[in-house]
Amino acid sequence: MFTFQEIAQTFSEKFRQQPISNDSTTLNQAVNYFLDLGGKRIRPVMCVMGNELFDNINPDAWHAANAIELFHNFTLIHDDIMDKATVRRGQPTVHAKYGESTALLTGDLMLVHAYEHLNRIDNRYLHKIMNLFNKTGKEVCEGQQLDMEFEQQENVHLDEYINMIGLKTSVLLAASLQMGAILGGASLGNQQHLYEFGKNLGLAFQVQDDYLDAFGDPKKFGKEIGGDIRANKKTFLQIRAMQAGSAAQKRSLQELMKQNGPDKVEKVLSIFKESGVDEWARSFKQEFMNKALQHLEDTAVISIRKEPLQQLAAYLMQRES
Amino acid sequence: MFTFQEIAQTFSEKFRQQPISNDSTTLNQAVNYFLDLGGKRIRPVMCVMGNELFDNINPDAWHAANAIELFHNFTLIHDDIMDKATVRRGQPTVHAKYGESTALLTGDLMLVHAYEHLNRIDNRYLHKIMNLFNKTGKEVCEGQQLDMEFEQQENVHLDEYINMIGLKTSVLLAASLQMGAILGGASLGNQQHLYEFGKNLGLAFQVQDDYLDAFGDPKKFGKEIGGDIRANKKTFLQIRAMQAGSAAQKRSLQELMKQNGPDKVEKVLSIFKESGVDEWARSFKQEFMNKALQHLEDTAVISIRKEPLQQLAAYLMQRES
Repeated sequence: MFTFQEIAQTFSEKFRQQPISNDSTTLNQAVNYFLDLGGKRIRPVMCVMGNELFDNINPDAWHAANAIELFHNFTLIHDDIMDKATVRRGQPTVHAKYGESTALLTGDLMLVHAYEHLNRIDNRYLHKIMNLFNKTGKEVCEGQQLDMEFEQQENVHLDEYINMIGLKTSVLLAASLQMGAILGGASLGNQQHLYEFGKNLGLAFQVQDDYLDAFGDPKKFGKEIGGDIRANKKTFLQIRAMQAGSAAQKRSLQELMKQNGPDKVEKVLSIFKESGVDEWARSFKQEFMNKALQHLEDTAVISIRKEPLQQLAAYLMQRES
Repeated sequence: MFTFQEIAQTFSEKFRQQPISNDSTTLNQAVNYFLDLGGKRIRPVMCVMGNELFDNINPDAWHAANAIELFHNFTLIHDDIMDKATVRRGQPTVHAKYGESTALLTGDLMLVHAYEHLNRIDNRYLHKIMNLFNKTGKEVCEGQQLDMEFEQQENVHLDEYINMIGLKTSVLLAASLQMGAILGGASLGNQQHLYEFGKNLGLAFQVQDDYLDAFGDPKKFGKEIGGDIRANKKTFLQIRAMQAGSAAQKRSLQELMKQNGPDKVEKVLSIFKESGVDEWARSFKQEFMNKALQHLEDTAVISIRKEPLQQLAAYLMQRES
């Protein structure tokens, strides 16, 4: 069995060894530009790890992994258009570099490329993999739409927010693992445990991400602290504070979100601390983490095969807490 | 065997009997809004006709037809965003009604839906159909990109323009027929003849469309005459005039494209006539039409089975000439 780092290395070599096309059309250039920006390749590696949990790597897992990574990049390109984001991985986004129309088409093309990779999967598995891939694709679109709608709403319930984050980010992690499990010959019950492991891991990761944006160590976090607060973004912390805070705290928070004073971040963080949102987030993350690990525990394979996934979970959660 | 109208009727019933989803999410509403605007359903019907040319209708042809129509509608929604078009089929476009971001996601979702329908196709055919579908999807994206690039170029060669139109519009007609042929058990040779029939028919149709925009009978054409001219669009006529016109005619045309005077359409039409572009277009369309019919002629099935497709070709070309 291989570690995350080893699989990531092999994946990266395979992934970029297959240029999308040698034709130097604008769209192919834009596709290659974006894929060359890199990324952690977490999802495709999880697909291969999901396979290896049950059996030696099925060559089809690399096809599924390619499709998953292309799908993920397609969503990033289109999300960047919607968010009007100009920088991704330290470089101009596709629409900042090539214009919105070309970026739109680049994303479309990348999605079709994803299905080209899926179509290399053996007949025995193709229907099942496509079924899960399509279901997940629909959910990710739905999650992005809900995210945009929530930004326009004054109040979002915590359950609604968990549902949205689940769709927007966690189901792809979950499905990546399950696709690997399918290709590793796992039973449906084991596939479902692995799916839930991935889904809860994704939710734990998002709670952590929101927490670090507010309370992280700027040196370790790699981004400026308080970005979500300045952008008035809905986060686990903001939503919890609007539910569990006192009437006065909620009023202050609402007032602060209407202005952009120099001490905005500082004041919001005070309210978060006073209403105990920081502590809540740490324990909320741990709940998801525990659920995730329990599902991995309940997967019916010998413990030693679970170690790489346990290490991955620990690695993703170690950033600070 | 069934006529175009009969298949269109059956297709429409099947297509809208399967609502995309009963969940009343914004995206599902937007998908259903757009599909309910209707359309001639030419491509899915051609898929079923391509099947019937060789054999009784394979139930999988309806799945392929659904996928093709969804793919076509996906391209329309995204093209409307790129073209900033506000009206489609007499109603607001998706982005005019729901905003650009939701329209972008609606298109994305529709493309995934298309693959859901493909995934219902039997294992014996799925790989082949997906292969052709993906190849065509990439070509259509490429065609749209070239179309946008050509609008920024002063001079486009006729061959480049034919290539672009082929990618943007004709390959989907061609592939629709070929997918049907595959599902009808046609040999590769027969599949290729049918593909070329569709591709040339699409090119003939586009030449006709450009011609009618300039020289059509306003009562029959259904649109105002000269729309392409007022919008300074590249068309078969404009490109031919810039190649075959005299130096003085080319200069006048270039000058006219820089202004928007009240007599612009009239003056451009005069140049088209003086340089013989109208006659050229009629014969150029006929060349594509002849090639198309020759490929249908060369398809190795008994003549009687070809009649519905011959009637369809005649119908598409009858609008005026």
